[in-house]
Amino acid sequence: MAYVIGVDFGTLSGRAVLVNAENGFIAAQCVADYPHGVDTTQGPGWALQDPMDYLVVLEKIVPPLLVQAGILPQEVAGIGWDVTSCTMLPALADGTPLCNALGFEGHPHARIKLWKHLAASPQARRIEEAAQGTGLLDRFGGKVSSQWMLPKVLQILEEAPEVYEAADLFLEVADWLTYVLTDSLRRNSCCAGFKAFWEEETGYPQEFFAGLDPRLSNLSRKLRGTVLPPWEAAGKLNEEWARRLGLLPGTLVSAGVIDAHAGLPGSGVAQSGTLLMAMGTSTCHMIFDEKLHTIPGICGTAKDSVLPGLWTYEAGQACVGDLLDWFVKNQVPARETERAGHEGLDIHQYLSREASELPPGSGGLLALDWWNGQRSPYVDDRLKGMMLGLTIRTTPAQQYRALMEATAYGTRLILETFEKGGVEIRDVTACGGISQKNPLMLQIYADVLGRPIRIAREEQTTAFGAAILAAAAAGVHEAPAQAVRAMTAPPEIIYFPDTERGAQYDALYAEYRTLAEYFSGINQVMHRL
Amino acid sequence: MAYVIGVDFGTLSGRAVLVNAENGFIAAQCVADYPHGVDTTQGPGWALQDPMDYLVVLEKIVPPLLVQAGILPQEVAGIGWDVTSCTMLPALADGTPLCNALGFEGHPHARIKLWKHLAASPQARRIEEAAQGTGLLDRFGGKVSSQWMLPKVLQILEEAPEVYEAADLFLEVADWLTYVLTDSLRRNSCCAGFKAFWEEETGYPQEFFAGLDPRLSNLSRKLRGTVLPPWEAAGKLNEEWARRLGLLPGTLVSAGVIDAHAGLPGSGVAQSGTLLMAMGTSTCHMIFDEKLHTIPGICGTAKDSVLPGLWTYEAGQACVGDLLDWFVKNQVPARETERAGHEGLDIHQYLSREASELPPGSGGLLALDWWNGQRSPYVDDRLKGMMLGLTIRTTPAQQYRALMEATAYGTRLILETFEKGGVEIRDVTACGGISQKNPLMLQIYADVLGRPIRIAREEQTTAFGAAILAAAAAGVHEAPAQAVRAMTAPPEIIYFPDTERGAQYDALYAEYRTLAEYFSGINQVMHRL
Repeated sequence: MAYVIGVDFGTLSGRAVLVNAENGFIAAQCVADYPHGVDTTQGPGWALQDPMDYLVVLEKIVPPLLVQAGILPQEVAGIGWDVTSCTMLPALADGTPLCNALGFEGHPHARIKLWKHLAASPQARRIEEAAQGTGLLDRFGGKVSSQWMLPKVLQILEEAPEVYEAADLFLEVADWLTYVLTDSLRRNSCCAGFKAFWEEETGYPQEFFAGLDPRLSNLSRKLRGTVLPPWEAAGKLNEEWARRLGLLPGTLVSAGVIDAHAGLPGSGVAQSGTLLMAMGTSTCHMIFDEKLHTIPGICGTAKDSVLPGLWTYEAGQACVGDLLDWFVKNQVPARETERAGHEGLDIHQYLSREASELPPGSGGLLALDWWNGQRSPYVDDRLKGMMLGLTIRTTPAQQYRALMEATAYGTRLILETFEKGGVEIRDVTACGGISQKNPLMLQIYADVLGRPIRIAREEQTTAFGAAILAAAAAGVHEAPAQAVRAMTAPPEIIYFPDTERGAQYDALYAEYRTLAEYFSGINQVMHRL
Repeated sequence: MAYVIGVDFGTLSGRAVLVNAENGFIAAQCVADYPHGVDTTQGPGWALQDPMDYLVVLEKIVPPLLVQAGILPQEVAGIGWDVTSCTMLPALADGTPLCNALGFEGHPHARIKLWKHLAASPQARRIEEAAQGTGLLDRFGGKVSSQWMLPKVLQILEEAPEVYEAADLFLEVADWLTYVLTDSLRRNSCCAGFKAFWEEETGYPQEFFAGLDPRLSNLSRKLRGTVLPPWEAAGKLNEEWARRLGLLPGTLVSAGVIDAHAGLPGSGVAQSGTLLMAMGTSTCHMIFDEKLHTIPGICGTAKDSVLPGLWTYEAGQACVGDLLDWFVKNQVPARETERAGHEGLDIHQYLSREASELPPGSGGLLALDWWNGQRSPYVDDRLKGMMLGLTIRTTPAQQYRALMEATAYGTRLILETFEKGGVEIRDVTACGGISQKNPLMLQIYADVLGRPIRIAREEQTTAFGAAILAAAAAGVHEAPAQAVRAMTAPPEIIYFPDTERGAQYDALYAEYRTLAEYFSGINQVMHRL
């Protein structure tokens, strides 16, 4: 009875880890892609998935864990998962996805809308307008993202009212999985609090829903189900799914959590004051605080959404790894890729090495890292990328470094926004692919932020975090924070800032800030183009 | 007695044309590279040449003309040349280049400083400061270019006073060639007026020279020699050079002219109101006007410098063809070059075709075309390029079009600066490599400017223009303007503006202008980086 399973459901694949629930040692892991991937063919901004993909992946990746580690089903104390969010679907009362129900097969609005489905932008704008002055957006920096539950539901209502009507439930995939595997209709407070306007004291803002459109007056019913924090048990594995996963019926299932947020326990963060940067294709910045602060430009906060007694704050940069990938795929000539090849390096490694020999400022270049819009603090997806200081002597390595630097400046702007809003940041930890693979980038971040950056020890921080929350739900430790401390180890790698480079970056960051303010407000040319 | 020879001395090669002096038909042409190219190894911004290269090229390219065309030396009425400027050298009293004189062999400061030698920038700044309030810069938009004669001479004086002292003459290469080939120490008013502060009424500003440095009190003497306009005969071929070129001794030699300015007669421009854009690696904008206007941001004007009774105005963009070349060499991935190759296109042709299918605005991109500094109207070589509107969906073809568009906006800004300054522009003609090879670019220019653009008929407009001036000097026609009209034909190709695209470009140009004003003045971040 000393193991837990954590499953991370990402955008393209699911990954499971089997973890010693006492000390956090990872005994086995397994990964599989969703068979059908992401369907973006339905229109601009659309991103759909097939609900069965999640179940197929679960059956593929959980059973091998026990075989790999040589442990028995009765040794598994619990299972939990994190899922991208808001990744949602309409379902019948028994949990059947509407897209599998008679008459709705293949209907685009009956399928899963992935977190990055952006086609509900018009709805998000109208919700944002309607919410002005209601206090509803106090926790969200005054903005509504098209990625949230309500814009997605409203898009369904407006474009396919028959789907809205036939949907007995709108569910986050994290909660749909709970329902399917345990027969318990339970929702997790992380998704509900960050993505669906739910609050512990008041529940959903039903009046606001109805004010948007009278047909939404039954939305709260379609969002029904007890909301539980992710460190609590939401139910027990039913017979069917115990069999399909090779576990015992009755195995505890924890309540689910947003994928990035699982990185907090997974990176060993159990207290306020530690900012976690989950650095991958995009970066998510999360931090715990004991108090509620209303901070313009910080996309969201919710209480008791990851660990008890703490508000989780979330901010983000929409384009980080994606930016470097775009650059190497679109802006690097054959000459450079061939040189990299001759040295046996991939193009990222090669450009990083070249860039590491450049001074701060990349030879006079400065970029705004908004290639995928601006998430925090301007919350404006119509902002776009910029690079200045280009000359006919500018090299790809200089630009590559300038892009890294730009994302570091963007992070510093977020940190300053947090601090200005009253959230104290005592230290910074990084997790995610970039934190493991890109030492130059981490050093630039340390220099730009003027702070040491600790690297989370486990690579699979989200699946690992989900396992820690499952251990907490199974009562293996005294308290959830205790589970985090017992199951994680201090970082082995820390990047320390250099004071000389830091002083140069202070000046460059001041320029970045001036330009960021200019293009986000004074001259909204990026909106007009 | 019905032919003239025009020679264009460019940066890397010389080209000669043999032209029927009556009707302008080109009978033969010949080209050769300078054996030693450009020496940029002496330091940042340095650009040196070997004077003997000019003579070697002349001997290579003139004699074959007569053979090709099957004409006799006595049929050649005159020869003239245009040269880059200010491309200058120190010489002894008899015209011997100082770098060939005993004790100065190979001394960097005794060699030719090419027009694009930029290492005299500190001197240019000091001259500019000293000239404030003197009226000396009224014809030059208040600015001093490091490319001019005086900064180059001052650099020699300060860094190699022994060279300054030993130099009996400082000569433009155009005038040095006249001296060598005719034994007449004559200078042309085009170089003297645009590059050496010479004016017909007052000569050189000797007091200003001496005020800069007492040692310059003899500079006027080192700049001695009667100044003649380019349509006048400066001398007659001496015995030696008649023999070396296969011409008759006594053949008329016209006074020389700046290379770009020779494009005016070469493109058939003989009157005020026609703006000529010489579009190549950079673009030079030239126009005649009957009056003197003091126009901030227009780099220069001089009277009687190309055709009699007319002020020639000159402005420029420092990076046009160079910008597109930089882009394809540095910012285009193998994927695109391979596709181009499969279709048998070079990468410029391929990207132009892709870009031609895009709407104005290149999918939300906007650039400032300052990759090589800003010549007109801001005259600021510390300004740099910028591109905004970048997203992870931005393609190389979009960027390529955005760069073309940016150079078109830059041209419109120059046209508006001319008009605001009182120079009327009735029509626009383009010459140079881009005008012949890049129809998309010319169409964009027509749409952005909202004017038809006529393409000069001859490809070698500068050598051809030098030949026309030689015909004028030889008295073949009644007057120089008459020579231009008789020897050139109206354009065959005209690009007409599209009103719909024009309206879109009006809005985009307004954005360009706002950004140009912001980065050239309000936020001088490009200076600070």
